[in-house]
Amino acid sequence: MSDKTGPTKGGGSSRRSFLTAAGASGAALIGAPALAGNPKNLPPNIPEWTRTLGDGVAVRPYGKPSKHEAHVIRRDVQWLTASRESSVSFTPLHELDGIITPNGLCFERHHGGIAEIDPQDYRLMIHGLVDKPLIFTLADLKRFPRVNRIHFLECAANSGMEWRGAQLNGCQYTHGMVHCVEYTGVPLRILLEEAGVKPNAKWLLAEGADSAAMTRSIPLAKALDDCLVAYRMNGEMLRPEQGYPARLVVPGWEGNVWIKWLRRLKLGDEPWFAREETSKYTDLMENGKARQFTFVMDAKSVITSPSPQAPLRQKGFAAISGLAWSGRGRIARVDVSLDGGKNWREAKIDGLRLDKAVTRFYAETEWTGQELLLQSRAIDETGYVQPTKNELRKIRGVNSIYHNNGIQTWLVKPDGEVENVEVS
Amino acid sequence: MSDKTGPTKGGGSSRRSFLTAAGASGAALIGAPALAGNPKNLPPNIPEWTRTLGDGVAVRPYGKPSKHEAHVIRRDVQWLTASRESSVSFTPLHELDGIITPNGLCFERHHGGIAEIDPQDYRLMIHGLVDKPLIFTLADLKRFPRVNRIHFLECAANSGMEWRGAQLNGCQYTHGMVHCVEYTGVPLRILLEEAGVKPNAKWLLAEGADSAAMTRSIPLAKALDDCLVAYRMNGEMLRPEQGYPARLVVPGWEGNVWIKWLRRLKLGDEPWFAREETSKYTDLMENGKARQFTFVMDAKSVITSPSPQAPLRQKGFAAISGLAWSGRGRIARVDVSLDGGKNWREAKIDGLRLDKAVTRFYAETEWTGQELLLQSRAIDETGYVQPTKNELRKIRGVNSIYHNNGIQTWLVKPDGEVENVEVS
Repeated sequence: MSDKTGPTKGGGSSRRSFLTAAGASGAALIGAPALAGNPKNLPPNIPEWTRTLGDGVAVRPYGKPSKHEAHVIRRDVQWLTASRESSVSFTPLHELDGIITPNGLCFERHHGGIAEIDPQDYRLMIHGLVDKPLIFTLADLKRFPRVNRIHFLECAANSGMEWRGAQLNGCQYTHGMVHCVEYTGVPLRILLEEAGVKPNAKWLLAEGADSAAMTRSIPLAKALDDCLVAYRMNGEMLRPEQGYPARLVVPGWEGNVWIKWLRRLKLGDEPWFAREETSKYTDLMENGKARQFTFVMDAKSVITSPSPQAPLRQKGFAAISGLAWSGRGRIARVDVSLDGGKNWREAKIDGLRLDKAVTRFYAETEWTGQELLLQSRAIDETGYVQPTKNELRKIRGVNSIYHNNGIQTWLVKPDGEVENVEVS
Repeated sequence: MSDKTGPTKGGGSSRRSFLTAAGASGAALIGAPALAGNPKNLPPNIPEWTRTLGDGVAVRPYGKPSKHEAHVIRRDVQWLTASRESSVSFTPLHELDGIITPNGLCFERHHGGIAEIDPQDYRLMIHGLVDKPLIFTLADLKRFPRVNRIHFLECAANSGMEWRGAQLNGCQYTHGMVHCVEYTGVPLRILLEEAGVKPNAKWLLAEGADSAAMTRSIPLAKALDDCLVAYRMNGEMLRPEQGYPARLVVPGWEGNVWIKWLRRLKLGDEPWFAREETSKYTDLMENGKARQFTFVMDAKSVITSPSPQAPLRQKGFAAISGLAWSGRGRIARVDVSLDGGKNWREAKIDGLRLDKAVTRFYAETEWTGQELLLQSRAIDETGYVQPTKNELRKIRGVNSIYHNNGIQTWLVKPDGEVENVEVS
């Protein structure tokens, strides 16, 4: 039994080297002085937390994360916007796995701050080209037949700052305007049928009760297809910053049409050309013309680990992990490249592969300290292949910050640190 | 336009009466004085929260529920146990929908309080009948290939207090020792293969690092099948009360074998007959003999709304909602009875129907104020049919509080209040 059979100095060791080291004399690992940590808590010692009675049940009637996870939070970029009331905070994608985003970490995008609504005074009004204008209380909405759907929500501006080159160092900032939860709500179709849609109605205006009175026009066909008026996320009532007590769910479409604090639905025969679909959320092309009503979020993916905020800590076995999603349906395949797009291998998709939801993928590799140029490429069930940023720029120029679904590149350096880079 | 075309006094109205009332003169609803609530916030007025700038992003870097949802919490029953360190708090099932339980509301069952573990000092030891005893740090575990699985976790004693008759008035208390989240973890099989399982190994001892050193024996076949060493729930790291930083996930089996704060796995050729599988978590039958190692949670269901804590507030359309689950696989069908089990109708299953996960069902009805005896009955993919409580008692007697998966009855009274009752 000798120190050299234990793991390498600094604690932990790669899967393969762990195997090798332990293979010679595994028992040496028990109590091996080379293990990092407080020796009195390490096996075969009984740790201090086994020697002490812990807190009992219901000490925290609504639970919260461990104090050791205090760094796992939504973060904003203060230079990005003039005020925090019209701004964004980002989901810490590099600190998550699986496909469900916990409610406390879902990114925020507000246009006039968080409306704090008393649920007793909440009303949803449906009017315009309907047979019977209606007003629903929250209790009314909760009594309707309801459905449960897991969907991603992505801001049209997600990755937008990357149009002109690699800008932000971390997938929380480059791709963190996406989250994915289970919604419970009333199919919008049922509410509209209750009001009676007039034959000439073709568009729906959705208005929020926030101080920006956030307003968007949505084609009636989409409203009647798969939209929900949702009041729950991951089982519980919507969080205030996600539109409590009710929001629109518009599966696969850009986040700004998922009107939060939903107050009013008006049916009409043409779009309203509201501020958020004229001066904002249109995509200015190279020739000075703008694309408008570019609702669908095309297939996209990002490697969440390793990434700039989650460097490679050890040589040896590494499970590259990431997320892929498409506003047009299910993810069919994800490819991963270690050399900036020269060679691709198919990633392993694990867990649920749902319609218009994020999908988790993994790619296993042995890292010997060589430089890597990590990329991922999503292919959805329509056959659409996620393009490179340059392919997008060729077609759309660099004026717009919306709908950048280009392939992201991470440079893994020999010391394991990771940088946001572009490859030509 | 007259008041009688508006909704009934007291705010809200049934779907059908809403339709009827609004049908005559829907526009009357706009600003109708009969609507409950603060008039200045009701349409067509602009509510106060639209007139005020709300809080900006990242004011709460880790979000929490609305202050109006402060009643949605885990609750304990203080007369139930001698101390809160060895006790239980219950999931508020009546306040949830869908299948995902938010992390803050997952029920707790501790035997010696919550171990507060420093993740730097966390170790998992694998020893006994293995080729190479191994010790893993948390960083080691996170580097292994991992999978994502949505599973229910139910305490063996869930509904146990109901063996001797209807005792607790609310599904939070009768059935709230169940939750369902997405776990991320390493297949236990991979860790055991890393250590090298000796041919004579047949059982696994799992030990927690809590002050009870919670310990259970698990057949090796199950360990090699679908168990995980999980460190995440719903994307983020496990909550302290759910075993931070790592716990065992034993799909479909009673919660006490899902060892939290997992510290040690020992392989052996027979079970250890630890305290929690001799004096506790065995099922004492009528003849004085005890069933032991009754791991699997059989098919079960409960109506979560209406229920004693969620009475029927309105006559007219009602969407009865509930949960069904089985430790033996997927739910095949759920039946609902309105008359205490005389007549059954098939419920509608909505959302995901996953292996060893809760499944959400609905049954629609028109409630005219008549008494209802609500029951639900789960059938799983093996063909197993959830029994009545009396059928269970006939076979097992009433000594044990474990594995009560009998059919639950709620009495809905003419005033809409709901009581926990038994029907013979």
